[in-house]
Amino acid sequence: MKDQFYTYIQNLQNVITQKIEEIDGKAIFKEDLWERPEGGGGKSRIMENGAVIEKGGVNISAVHGPLPESMQAYFKVREVDFYACGLSLVLHPKNPMAPTVHANWRYFEMYDQHSILINQWFGGGLDLTPYYLFEEDAIHFHQVCKKACDLHPPHSYETYKNQCDQYFYNSHREEARGIGGLFFDYLKADEKGRIDHHYQFIKAVADSFLKAYTPLLIKRKDLPYTTNQREWQEIRRGRYVEFNLIHDKGTLFGLKTKGRIESILMSLPPRVQWHYNYEPPKGSEEKKLLEVLKTPKKWA
Amino acid sequence: MKDQFYTYIQNLQNVITQKIEEIDGKAIFKEDLWERPEGGGGKSRIMENGAVIEKGGVNISAVHGPLPESMQAYFKVREVDFYACGLSLVLHPKNPMAPTVHANWRYFEMYDQHSILINQWFGGGLDLTPYYLFEEDAIHFHQVCKKACDLHPPHSYETYKNQCDQYFYNSHREEARGIGGLFFDYLKADEKGRIDHHYQFIKAVADSFLKAYTPLLIKRKDLPYTTNQREWQEIRRGRYVEFNLIHDKGTLFGLKTKGRIESILMSLPPRVQWHYNYEPPKGSEEKKLLEVLKTPKKWA
Repeated sequence: MKDQFYTYIQNLQNVITQKIEEIDGKAIFKEDLWERPEGGGGKSRIMENGAVIEKGGVNISAVHGPLPESMQAYFKVREVDFYACGLSLVLHPKNPMAPTVHANWRYFEMYDQHSILINQWFGGGLDLTPYYLFEEDAIHFHQVCKKACDLHPPHSYETYKNQCDQYFYNSHREEARGIGGLFFDYLKADEKGRIDHHYQFIKAVADSFLKAYTPLLIKRKDLPYTTNQREWQEIRRGRYVEFNLIHDKGTLFGLKTKGRIESILMSLPPRVQWHYNYEPPKGSEEKKLLEVLKTPKKWA
Repeated sequence: MKDQFYTYIQNLQNVITQKIEEIDGKAIFKEDLWERPEGGGGKSRIMENGAVIEKGGVNISAVHGPLPESMQAYFKVREVDFYACGLSLVLHPKNPMAPTVHANWRYFEMYDQHSILINQWFGGGLDLTPYYLFEEDAIHFHQVCKKACDLHPPHSYETYKNQCDQYFYNSHREEARGIGGLFFDYLKADEKGRIDHHYQFIKAVADSFLKAYTPLLIKRKDLPYTTNQREWQEIRRGRYVEFNLIHDKGTLFGLKTKGRIESILMSLPPRVQWHYNYEPPKGSEEKKLLEVLKTPKKWA
């Protein structure tokens, strides 16, 4: 399964980066290969200062070796070996009317001291972080998410949508990072050791990414915007940074397993602002977004 | 002791904010009082968009109540009450030639279930984060730090300087946040219950803050700078954010004890950039700074 999934994400990286380059029309992804001293490595593709994408990365990696001590505590296991591979992407458009998107699809294996496979699972999802709320965009994104789930019962859109709202939550601000999408983890093999049904599901989700996101990007990338709207985008990007550095388990996993720092932190937005105690005015578009982030809505 | 120290930091907040306003000449500190539902509160003073200070805060707080569960694990105690008060300040100048400064001086008490004092200590320090290295500035800052220690044996500049280098360290980048200063913690009462000698020491350190920092600010605030130098400052500020959100125990303590978010995160710089894999050219001033951050120097 690990070779099968890694081949799949290698190909998917090509498909996604090609499509994003086509939409951007100016910048191309810069590729960096890296190796992890303890085992494995990755292929990062980063775009900066595009016509549409201000900063973005579509990275794959496959790492393995002894599970670091700090992660042993996290998974409540002792002295095991692990293998983890996945694709992670974050795209930060320049235009504040266009939403930031994040996605991650990963596969994990754990082995005992005799190299016997003792656990394996898939995890991941995709989620949207708008700076201005276009309800039709949120509905489109969630409808595509829902369709991928509906085609693969018993995978449940409602469950994964709720998990996404719970996971991408800045508890210290009491607000969601964005308007959600799907989040699932520990999709393990069944009692007969079969995991192919989860593989089919995660492929369906990952294959629907471009369909979920690119229509929104295309629709919003050339909308006019003001300096104040751009400022709001940069302030909201600050919340994105806070989530990724304080709460995100993926970032933590990368840091604890000594992944490549620049590949892990490619998720951080290019230009960010922190104002003291900023509150958008009542009735404004900015306030409307905050209300939805305080109380997640049903979109599909 | 707690009333004595709180009175001291209340006065110190006035002295420091008055002096910074005088140097800035344009902006003034905005004061916000806040209360913590579980007990205590604080007085935040924030300056933004000054002629010299782009963003800064000089905050005091005194919080008390049952020690939150997550902090019980941290201190390895169970079901105790606590009292903590302190002054925290961060000043981010606009001019990239002027360094950012951080300082914190705090006092902590812990009580058993019968409200008996079971532990008390002082902690804190001050440290400097330049964007361009002026060796004479680093020497001046450290000399003032050293003098405060030398006047209060057995408090040792060497020990607290090394602790500062170790504490303000971005381990995921393998570089220091800045060029250090002093860091000390758990300055506890002696076997006879006396703690006044530590109070005298921390006062000496805190009283020397303006002497350590303001000459540098005054000397650098009007130096000419280029767009590229400003960009470098904003990139380095990104490392400041990374430290505060990933590693800083003070930020963590604030978040875990449900302090006021905007007062805790006032430390974050106003405008920040993250570029992918940015490396300054060999032999540049920017590279010179990085070398000192990779290998801390003796300054005094």
